[in-house]
Amino acid sequence: MHTHSHDDHTEHHMQSSDVLRDIVIGMSDGLTVPFALAAGLSGAVSDSSIIVIAGIAEIAAGSIAMGLGGYLAGKTEQDHYKSELKREYDEVERVPEREKQEVREFFEQIGLSEEVQIKATEEIAKDKKQWVDFMMKYELGLDEPDPKRAARSAMNIGLSYIVGGIIPLSPYFFIKNSAEALKISVIATLVCLFIFGYFKSKITGVPAVAGALKVTMIGALAAGAAFGIASLF
Amino acid sequence: MHTHSHDDHTEHHMQSSDVLRDIVIGMSDGLTVPFALAAGLSGAVSDSSIIVIAGIAEIAAGSIAMGLGGYLAGKTEQDHYKSELKREYDEVERVPEREKQEVREFFEQIGLSEEVQIKATEEIAKDKKQWVDFMMKYELGLDEPDPKRAARSAMNIGLSYIVGGIIPLSPYFFIKNSAEALKISVIATLVCLFIFGYFKSKITGVPAVAGALKVTMIGALAAGAAFGIASLF
Repeated sequence: MHTHSHDDHTEHHMQSSDVLRDIVIGMSDGLTVPFALAAGLSGAVSDSSIIVIAGIAEIAAGSIAMGLGGYLAGKTEQDHYKSELKREYDEVERVPEREKQEVREFFEQIGLSEEVQIKATEEIAKDKKQWVDFMMKYELGLDEPDPKRAARSAMNIGLSYIVGGIIPLSPYFFIKNSAEALKISVIATLVCLFIFGYFKSKITGVPAVAGALKVTMIGALAAGAAFGIASLF
Repeated sequence: MHTHSHDDHTEHHMQSSDVLRDIVIGMSDGLTVPFALAAGLSGAVSDSSIIVIAGIAEIAAGSIAMGLGGYLAGKTEQDHYKSELKREYDEVERVPEREKQEVREFFEQIGLSEEVQIKATEEIAKDKKQWVDFMMKYELGLDEPDPKRAARSAMNIGLSYIVGGIIPLSPYFFIKNSAEALKISVIATLVCLFIFGYFKSKITGVPAVAGALKVTMIGALAAGAAFGIASLF
């Protein structure tokens, strides 16, 4: 679901919504998994201090896995882009006729006449950079990744996971009995999940209340399942 | 990182690698987070049974959050595609000149001469379906999502998370002392992370051993951090 942005305004708009997206990804997962873990443990142990330790261990683990995982995924995407770019430059050098044929097939597939296919292909292939950029974007479907984006995105997601995870866990800091803490955790977390689901839906452009209910439902189901399963032990 | 596939062979190839991708996503997260949680708790409690309960609660929570989360994200992508499709059909009906201008701008931006821009735009706009398909794919960058894909992907990711999570947790089932269980868990999980990192890298087309080491390092760091933080309590 990416949009090709052509001017500075759109570019700027995309960047701030990228940050929002990172925050929403990190926070809604941070709200869901530590919430469900704490709820599950509340079904099995009555002492909140164990739940606090488990919750903190989970938040550390989850934020590192999501943050660092996101960072490395971004780096991988950059390496992949670079290696494909190099290959395309090699190919327009080594097998220009085959590469021209691929450009022509693109124009054929979108519905142009043979005459226009040939003319358009000649014009694209006049400039090597323009030719390769075209192949990267429309043959391979690859957009050039922003090199600074990977690190920033990792930080945003990881920190948002921590902030999100603190919310369901905080009642257990203050209330010794886990069943009591669970009640407050459920209310606080479901309200936050609804609010974050609402913003998440606004950002992705889907009906906001329905989207918010879905996000809340995932959290409730995960917590319910974890509670049910842990209670069996 | 999607590829536009034009024939049946490529289509088939893409589908099987989609399943592999789901399995790798679910399993490498399943290996990482429950592993780190169990390691973290081993730094704070000596009885394995609490770690087993926490681990199972986390696996239930994580698999539901990832699986159901992935399912709803897929559904949202479909809804978004449909609503954009409807809007494009409306727009070519209501403001055809503006839409033609957008097609022309696409051809201008890839480097075609004014003459070819105009001809190509006329040819595209001759057929409404062809016109809208073009706008969806190349103006908005949206591919039509596979309607069955969302559910299948959710199942694959969720189940793989469970399978992945069982591996670091299994020593705690059999060994009463958590410090002893941790040793076996660390060895088994790091080996599995390396193997899955290797396949993950093969699938995404990056150097496999370097990729495998990165995935293993994330797991080790997450577990180390969780252990360190939980030990403080």
